[in-house]
Amino acid sequence: MLETPKGLRLHIGIFGRRNSGKSTLMNALIGQSVSIVSDQPGTTTDPVEKTFELAPLGPVVFIDTAGLDDEGDLGALRIEKTRQVLERVDVALVVVDAGGMTATERDLMATLRAANTPFAIVFNKSDLGEPPAEQLAQLAAEAIETVSISAATGRGIDRVKEALFRQAPESSIEDPRLVGDLIGPGDLVVLVVPIDLGAPKGRLILPQVQTMRDILDSDAVGLMVKERELAAALARMSDKPRLVVCDSQVVNKVSADTPPDIRMTTFSILMARFKGDMIGLAEGAGAISRLKPGDKVLIAEACSHHALADDIGRVKIPRWLRQYAGGNLDIEVRSGKDFPEDLSSYALIVQCGGCTVTRKQILVRQYRAAQQGVPMTNYGMAISVSQGVIERALECFPAALDAYRRGMAGSAR
Amino acid sequence: MLETPKGLRLHIGIFGRRNSGKSTLMNALIGQSVSIVSDQPGTTTDPVEKTFELAPLGPVVFIDTAGLDDEGDLGALRIEKTRQVLERVDVALVVVDAGGMTATERDLMATLRAANTPFAIVFNKSDLGEPPAEQLAQLAAEAIETVSISAATGRGIDRVKEALFRQAPESSIEDPRLVGDLIGPGDLVVLVVPIDLGAPKGRLILPQVQTMRDILDSDAVGLMVKERELAAALARMSDKPRLVVCDSQVVNKVSADTPPDIRMTTFSILMARFKGDMIGLAEGAGAISRLKPGDKVLIAEACSHHALADDIGRVKIPRWLRQYAGGNLDIEVRSGKDFPEDLSSYALIVQCGGCTVTRKQILVRQYRAAQQGVPMTNYGMAISVSQGVIERALECFPAALDAYRRGMAGSAR
Repeated sequence: MLETPKGLRLHIGIFGRRNSGKSTLMNALIGQSVSIVSDQPGTTTDPVEKTFELAPLGPVVFIDTAGLDDEGDLGALRIEKTRQVLERVDVALVVVDAGGMTATERDLMATLRAANTPFAIVFNKSDLGEPPAEQLAQLAAEAIETVSISAATGRGIDRVKEALFRQAPESSIEDPRLVGDLIGPGDLVVLVVPIDLGAPKGRLILPQVQTMRDILDSDAVGLMVKERELAAALARMSDKPRLVVCDSQVVNKVSADTPPDIRMTTFSILMARFKGDMIGLAEGAGAISRLKPGDKVLIAEACSHHALADDIGRVKIPRWLRQYAGGNLDIEVRSGKDFPEDLSSYALIVQCGGCTVTRKQILVRQYRAAQQGVPMTNYGMAISVSQGVIERALECFPAALDAYRRGMAGSAR
Repeated sequence: MLETPKGLRLHIGIFGRRNSGKSTLMNALIGQSVSIVSDQPGTTTDPVEKTFELAPLGPVVFIDTAGLDDEGDLGALRIEKTRQVLERVDVALVVVDAGGMTATERDLMATLRAANTPFAIVFNKSDLGEPPAEQLAQLAAEAIETVSISAATGRGIDRVKEALFRQAPESSIEDPRLVGDLIGPGDLVVLVVPIDLGAPKGRLILPQVQTMRDILDSDAVGLMVKERELAAALARMSDKPRLVVCDSQVVNKVSADTPPDIRMTTFSILMARFKGDMIGLAEGAGAISRLKPGDKVLIAEACSHHALADDIGRVKIPRWLRQYAGGNLDIEVRSGKDFPEDLSSYALIVQCGGCTVTRKQILVRQYRAAQQGVPMTNYGMAISVSQGVIERALECFPAALDAYRRGMAGSAR
């Protein structure tokens, strides 16, 4: 974390009029953070910058600026400095006090838009009164994200963080490797790919292609084989493969055909890391063992695909979960962007692999679930649990295996 | 050919008024064909069907129908039978005599369109006069393909065939295997994939994915490796691979690193077969050796991509061809759909791999070139010629290797 060069960190600007509560908001955001990396005090005219770790965005730089309505000569200089900050932030929070927006905020929004800088409007001091309804309606009509908070009492600070994650550019979240960190140059990696009726004609699915590419990028060698040919292929090899990766559908057969001294995992588990926070999803998978009859479970599909007869999310996973719970469950399926604000009634959330959404979107969902103390896992982890191979599939990710066991025990992280 | 079930053959209907020259056209088309497979005479009311091989479409069924303007009771029955034919043809030729179209042809066109049946208008008897200019203009405005011919003298019959190929549904042309027919169950196939700056981030290019998929579909095993790791990977294998396939860019290194008793070819050569008639393209590749200074060469790009600094079609291939010719060449580059009608001035045509176009589109171009006696090859074959490895790369395709040698000798096929 300390090694991330400052230029690569996400820069978050906090803008607004004097006394709107910018500094209080920054302190509230930082107050909840794990660690303050640096604290560089500003001069009377320089914006204050604070660098710290804001999971899941990683290290960020918060820039607290002078009020945009500052008066006098010194004020003009401060405003000029603030305008300079506008040019170097990746995402902005516009803080508005209880009275509502004025021409100053409207000007600022126009400047941010012209610069293509994403932003959210933070109505502060909600303890003193709600924001003007017509302004909220107008902003909603313009598809601008708004959050109503009280920086002083701490109310809604988590919502500000969630807004930041949502507005942050995709590029601010580093794509983790798929397998590159598990293998070395010259290593042999076996990819087991079932070709069933669901496989697209003449193609391979994207996780298979991406994994193979990451193997080549690691100067390693990838062997691709159907599950039926795996045992014969392994028997004929003079070298032991470094890793076997298989489709979740065939994890049982592949686990049986792969000697126990060879590490094995699934594409879904690799994708859980690539498309989300694997540790959290593994901990959520542990919670499956704690399901009780009558529990409410949310199945979240990122896309509203045409459901097949034995649809994984709508049929197979609910059936497995009921078997685990030893009785009926109250299962709710939500598709597309329909992910509830209030998750507190759910005992578990099972998210799809997220092939049509970005890593950030999954991370935002995981953040919301974590804030509300609701375990969240995904299809691939749930399948490995149901097949009894999750512990083996997580062996090459010790931190995730620990998290899974923590999730089973039900203890807090 | 005789084994193709009749139901799978392309059905081509010939429609028109009486005496428009339908039967003469069918006979002219068949007269040029390699072999008449069957000749089933019609009754007075039944349409005449003839099955024969129409390269490159393969076996087709021609259905010669009764005139749509037939009169009397028997005529009504014949018209009814003709309407039934409309329902089962895959593509139609509407034959119009020298006088031009009437309401009958307009009705027929509306029926064909309603049934989503592709068709071309054949203005026959061009020896007696040209088709009405305003009708040609109107049809062109409607993007309907027209051909002006004389079935009696044979003038334009090749143009009718080309129109048929163009209008025929893609599905009427069988996709050949990429490698499936070269390998057997359990075989090991090595795919050598360079990862350079041109490779798309985190992906593999489509020919690599399609080849791997065809390997899996053949119950074989595919090993993917970068060219740098190939020698070490081959040395560590207990089994000899059945085939090594490499990117054309690294064919020289791969040829050197692959022991001579292992068959080797390139993705481009596999794609030449998948996306065109490999035999013809190999024969065209042979013609490269016969280029002389001053010869005119057409470089045909299927898409108008942004040309790179060392663009393969615009820079590298022209440079190689000039080296072969031992002097300057008159090189013309055409992009997109801009493929000349008259090819007779060219000594050679070099077509791109055609990744953005269909197999049929390449076959239609090859047909036109063959009709005009102009050698045509593609980028992949040309690269292998320039690297001096074409003979090795064609070893697993003996007919193509023969064609290449024929092309070098300059003898007719």
